[in-house]
Amino acid sequence: MKKITIGLVVALATLLSACSNDDGASAGAATQQSFKWKMVTTWPKNFPGLGTIPQDFADNVEKMSGGRLKIKVYGAGEMVPALQTFDAVKSGAAQMGHGAAYYWKGKIPAAQFFTTIPFGMNAQETNGWFYHGGGNELWQEAYEPFGIIPFPGGNTGVQMAGWFQKEINSLADFQGLKIRIPGLAGEVVADLGGIPVQMPGGELFSAMQSGALDATDWVGPYNDLAFGLYKTAPYYYVTGWQEPGAALEFIINKQAFEQLPSDLQAIVEIATEAANANMLALYTAKNNEALQSLKEKGVKIRKFPKDVIEALKSSSLQSVKNLVASDKMAEKIFNSYQKFLAQSSEYHALTEQDYYHNRSGIDWAKAQPVQE
Amino acid sequence: MKKITIGLVVALATLLSACSNDDGASAGAATQQSFKWKMVTTWPKNFPGLGTIPQDFADNVEKMSGGRLKIKVYGAGEMVPALQTFDAVKSGAAQMGHGAAYYWKGKIPAAQFFTTIPFGMNAQETNGWFYHGGGNELWQEAYEPFGIIPFPGGNTGVQMAGWFQKEINSLADFQGLKIRIPGLAGEVVADLGGIPVQMPGGELFSAMQSGALDATDWVGPYNDLAFGLYKTAPYYYVTGWQEPGAALEFIINKQAFEQLPSDLQAIVEIATEAANANMLALYTAKNNEALQSLKEKGVKIRKFPKDVIEALKSSSLQSVKNLVASDKMAEKIFNSYQKFLAQSSEYHALTEQDYYHNRSGIDWAKAQPVQE
Repeated sequence: MKKITIGLVVALATLLSACSNDDGASAGAATQQSFKWKMVTTWPKNFPGLGTIPQDFADNVEKMSGGRLKIKVYGAGEMVPALQTFDAVKSGAAQMGHGAAYYWKGKIPAAQFFTTIPFGMNAQETNGWFYHGGGNELWQEAYEPFGIIPFPGGNTGVQMAGWFQKEINSLADFQGLKIRIPGLAGEVVADLGGIPVQMPGGELFSAMQSGALDATDWVGPYNDLAFGLYKTAPYYYVTGWQEPGAALEFIINKQAFEQLPSDLQAIVEIATEAANANMLALYTAKNNEALQSLKEKGVKIRKFPKDVIEALKSSSLQSVKNLVASDKMAEKIFNSYQKFLAQSSEYHALTEQDYYHNRSGIDWAKAQPVQE
Repeated sequence: MKKITIGLVVALATLLSACSNDDGASAGAATQQSFKWKMVTTWPKNFPGLGTIPQDFADNVEKMSGGRLKIKVYGAGEMVPALQTFDAVKSGAAQMGHGAAYYWKGKIPAAQFFTTIPFGMNAQETNGWFYHGGGNELWQEAYEPFGIIPFPGGNTGVQMAGWFQKEINSLADFQGLKIRIPGLAGEVVADLGGIPVQMPGGELFSAMQSGALDATDWVGPYNDLAFGLYKTAPYYYVTGWQEPGAALEFIINKQAFEQLPSDLQAIVEIATEAANANMLALYTAKNNEALQSLKEKGVKIRKFPKDVIEALKSSSLQSVKNLVASDKMAEKIFNSYQKFLAQSSEYHALTEQDYYHNRSGIDWAKAQPVQE
């Protein structure tokens, strides 16, 4: 009897531990597995917004999955350099990444449409096109050859034109201007006689202080304040013609995604949608606050003169035309992008733009019984 | 031996069935339960956008939870009439609802701040305030006495001012105007000599055709086209001063929410964030398309004259002032709302509004090699 009893106890113990090791089954054996993923990013670890939103995403996925999918987020350079994020996800070294599509324009010229186009869609229009205008499907098609699935990963809203050592009073002031500016906008600046420089955000402060740069764009008040760029130049130019609604991206290794059970796949996808929206809400709140701080620090807000805006527009049109003519996928994407933008431009001129105009001048503080 | 072996087999079988019955454990026994919820809504079943987004939400929750939380969505009148949605969730007859906070202004005057305020925040600003400006916390505080937890549940973007039988050429044309218009905007119209009417969307078509109404607001091109309102009046007035960014809401019975394990609570909350963003993206895409259809049908787009806009603004300011003076919670919420709006108005005038202005006139079709 004794031996058998021991045998029974052992048998029970084994089964019990099998049960308690099951940390999150939802539908059949396949889903009883737990997963640990790595997410590499193009941002400094926990950089405001750009770096914190991917961490929030990872936290949400862990909560929703009851711990069955844990994602460790790496800052730029912690696992791979910022601009090797795409390759790390392609190879599977990391299952996931967060960055911006236009960083990969060397591999995929058309990718620029999935971040931002000078004088193109703003954030609200970009999300309309991504989710309900065919944008996401074209994005997936563009990344498919690399075994990568893209998802929208946030938006900064309209950015700022950037920080300038000298005022821009005419087109002539672009001659020889050394300015850090990414994507198609770099070609536009070059077309106007400037010298576009590609440089990661982390190097901008010293390059502006040393005079290696005459001007730099970065993002907007929230992120520019974090880098202290107001200490490097007196003039802050609005509006970000070059990035009217820069979209970020989550990229996922296709094989890794397909190994997830369907409930975890849904959790990942819906979590990207929440993160995409949450970043724009965060920037909308923080940019407002940061602009006030910058003004208190004496930053001089400037706008480009009309002739400069018009030159930037015609040059932007030409640079997009060149891109579209040079690449079949770019042409296919632009065909969709341009149709959506043509309609949304007309609609938003009648609604969002007209509303901002009509609202101006109303002083809500007057409705407040207690002035604070 | 035989008896003991049988005893062993029974013991094993019991344990095995305990394992296989575990249809979704993630952290302890509490989470092994499945849940069936009812969601009542203030919209016709599957009405474009307003009705389809809650269904998408329910589908996403079921997918993410591996079927552990199933939510059945009811259209207005299927379980309770539209305007009993709040009470049905309060009583627990339904665990969840979808509608708009300003429908409950009789119970909670301050609730209007969580839908829209005439000449107040647009959609992007509203989401900034909700998620990162303290709005959601105030919303939860306002609903707490009713045992209901609110979550943002979508946004239509800037609406249209509505459909008018006659042109509005001056303030005098508001005298005796019978117009369907909800919320604070109704008080504004009354202040200008009009006759505001409260009426559910489903009744608008016949009321306009019978002449019971001289004018009506509803939402925007996407939803107005669905109701065929273009057949009832020739003039379509932009811009929706009365609803510059109408927010919808998910409301959840607090006890029902607290009975969910933490992973399902996270799934529900993140799914509301995705649904909230998805509705604005949907309206951004569909309003563009619908506006084109309406123009093809010969709809005459009109704008109010400047003096009408100014009168609407000062009257809106006064009606908000009255609300704030009459209700302590309204005053507390307005204090937060007004501070956020003051900053975002200034910021968006420099960015979003200035960008729309700078972008105007660019003809992207010129960048397209193949004209279609």
